[in-house]
Amino acid sequence: MPHSHPTGSVGIVTPSTQRFTDPLILANGDVLEEYDLVYETYGTLNQSASNAVLICHALSGHHHAAGKHSPDDRKPGWWDNYIGPGKAIDTDRFFVVSLNNLGGCHGSTGPVSINPKTGKAWGATFPRLRVRDWVHSQAKLADHLGIDTWAAVIGGSLGGMQAMRWSLEYPNRLRHCAVIASAMKLSAQNIAFNETARQAIMSDPDFHDGDYLEFDTYPKHGLSIARMIGHITYLSGDGMGEKFGRELRKGNFNLGERDLVEFEIESYLRYQGERFSGTFDANTYILMTRALDYFDLSREYGNDPSQAFAQSKCKFLVLSFSSDWRFSPQRSKEIVDALIAARKPVTYAEIESSHGHDAFLVPNARYHDVFSRYMQQITI
Amino acid sequence: MPHSHPTGSVGIVTPSTQRFTDPLILANGDVLEEYDLVYETYGTLNQSASNAVLICHALSGHHHAAGKHSPDDRKPGWWDNYIGPGKAIDTDRFFVVSLNNLGGCHGSTGPVSINPKTGKAWGATFPRLRVRDWVHSQAKLADHLGIDTWAAVIGGSLGGMQAMRWSLEYPNRLRHCAVIASAMKLSAQNIAFNETARQAIMSDPDFHDGDYLEFDTYPKHGLSIARMIGHITYLSGDGMGEKFGRELRKGNFNLGERDLVEFEIESYLRYQGERFSGTFDANTYILMTRALDYFDLSREYGNDPSQAFAQSKCKFLVLSFSSDWRFSPQRSKEIVDALIAARKPVTYAEIESSHGHDAFLVPNARYHDVFSRYMQQITI
Repeated sequence: MPHSHPTGSVGIVTPSTQRFTDPLILANGDVLEEYDLVYETYGTLNQSASNAVLICHALSGHHHAAGKHSPDDRKPGWWDNYIGPGKAIDTDRFFVVSLNNLGGCHGSTGPVSINPKTGKAWGATFPRLRVRDWVHSQAKLADHLGIDTWAAVIGGSLGGMQAMRWSLEYPNRLRHCAVIASAMKLSAQNIAFNETARQAIMSDPDFHDGDYLEFDTYPKHGLSIARMIGHITYLSGDGMGEKFGRELRKGNFNLGERDLVEFEIESYLRYQGERFSGTFDANTYILMTRALDYFDLSREYGNDPSQAFAQSKCKFLVLSFSSDWRFSPQRSKEIVDALIAARKPVTYAEIESSHGHDAFLVPNARYHDVFSRYMQQITI
Repeated sequence: MPHSHPTGSVGIVTPSTQRFTDPLILANGDVLEEYDLVYETYGTLNQSASNAVLICHALSGHHHAAGKHSPDDRKPGWWDNYIGPGKAIDTDRFFVVSLNNLGGCHGSTGPVSINPKTGKAWGATFPRLRVRDWVHSQAKLADHLGIDTWAAVIGGSLGGMQAMRWSLEYPNRLRHCAVIASAMKLSAQNIAFNETARQAIMSDPDFHDGDYLEFDTYPKHGLSIARMIGHITYLSGDGMGEKFGRELRKGNFNLGERDLVEFEIESYLRYQGERFSGTFDANTYILMTRALDYFDLSREYGNDPSQAFAQSKCKFLVLSFSSDWRFSPQRSKEIVDALIAARKPVTYAEIESSHGHDAFLVPNARYHDVFSRYMQQITI
């Protein structure tokens, strides 16, 4: 049904970088004396600054969510399917802000940045961040942009965790919270996959205990394995079967060569792993997966998520995808149950999709309809 | 309900090693001029040799399926829960044969064995085996033991694939075929997990393109990651949640140390990975996972599994476990459907268990009952 999906684009976009010199006190007690945040905006902020929407990115995301940086770009931003004129997050109505989170590797201060105290890259010494640290830094960005209250804070996966945390940390600064393919905390299995990915990176001899930049190298193989593990869990078993089946690359078995690639799925995964490992920072990957593991919405609310959500004052949209087994519909239903128990307004839909966790990025008619209609009823 | 599970033991057992000097022609065209098979037997072969049962092992299994090698052994053989006096595979009735497969690393000829042509360990040059090669070598062992027809060939997971292949390759040499937690072929997702595990091993610098023995080392880290990946897929998400939850090892977050282990599940996985990597050969692991990937019961029968099973002449027991997502009940139902279409007698049960794929090894009252009663009605 992608034929019904709108195709409007925000066009060519240019990122901005803002330096913040007010110290940021982190959840672990560390203080970041100063930091940069790189961000993009799409659409126009209205007079009363009532139409601003914040996009929170997931594990491997960044600020470039929509449009292209140059007409020659092969692909647009990572959420271009849902951000643009006439799209679910309609840039004809909304002023959209999308940033690279602290600790990232796409321009915001993170492990590849220089630590002013040492004159060397932070590397593995970059403070271990929690989701709330991102929320606090995002609030500083809102201040800078003159946005007192977001019309909506929106995120998928790890981004959804940031959106939920926003509703607790700054209840007066958002009117809507959209939590897509997310969870109030990871399961043991989720943590297990993350830990295996981290171990793959950390046991790569080129990791050098996280100081690989000083050795002018990087843990290419480990990061590639980490991405392969992640990739399997982002797709559904059925979707992978439909796309690759058991297709043999050469039509028949080849039992001779040492390191052969027999199945199309093997070739695909190796390509994905290698491509990712060349563009993403390993310390950032470890930091982001740890933030995922640590996130536990209700830990300091007596492990009662309805007590946590009692802090919130906004309305909620919760979306899940039928074949998502990394953040299954069950996890979204737990969010909905907690919101109902806290007597908060919530709209929930489970979208049929064979795309697994990745479904939140993929064109889908019902997802588009539900998401669009929710966004359309937000007053600005 | 493990209280109802029998506890009889076959006692102290001693493995035997048999050298075969008849060349074995392999599916890939290679010829193994001579080879050893190490095996154990439990119970007594009757006069007419009608009570013999063959146990086929899974990915990381071996010949030591029941009893102990010494009274001091901490644990008995890997399937001691189901092999022994009064157990499902009742050694008071059956003569049980359990071997280490060719290509293994527990005594049968495999990558760590010396290639007589070179005087060096085979390593990565060991022929790439298929499931049918194991079946053919198992038939040679049957010949040696004077067993013309097995009362039953039994296997779980990769072992179930061997049992099914037995029913097609030697239809007159088995009367019953028990296929537990198995599948007629792997899914793309299964292959993807195996490939990621192999890549973890092969990208370890200590792998040396498979020739690590020559360098007096082994790919400890890669094999450990491979095992961690496997382990996650052998357990169910719910089972892992029940066992480990999100328990923090130190009761609270520790955001300082570089390589910390925060969650109990992380500690458990690292331990499993490290323990395994110290006792298992990496080339064997690659060989076994490739055999899993290659297995496709009906590939040479027009991709019609009922055409494949039309070759068989035995009766079938098929068992699956509710929380097994690596070889889900759906995969077992496909086996049952194909057997019904081929008009073959089949008994099927899906056992409730929270233990995922590992359930086939774990005490379970209904599993014990169904399995025992099926075995009891086999005439000997």
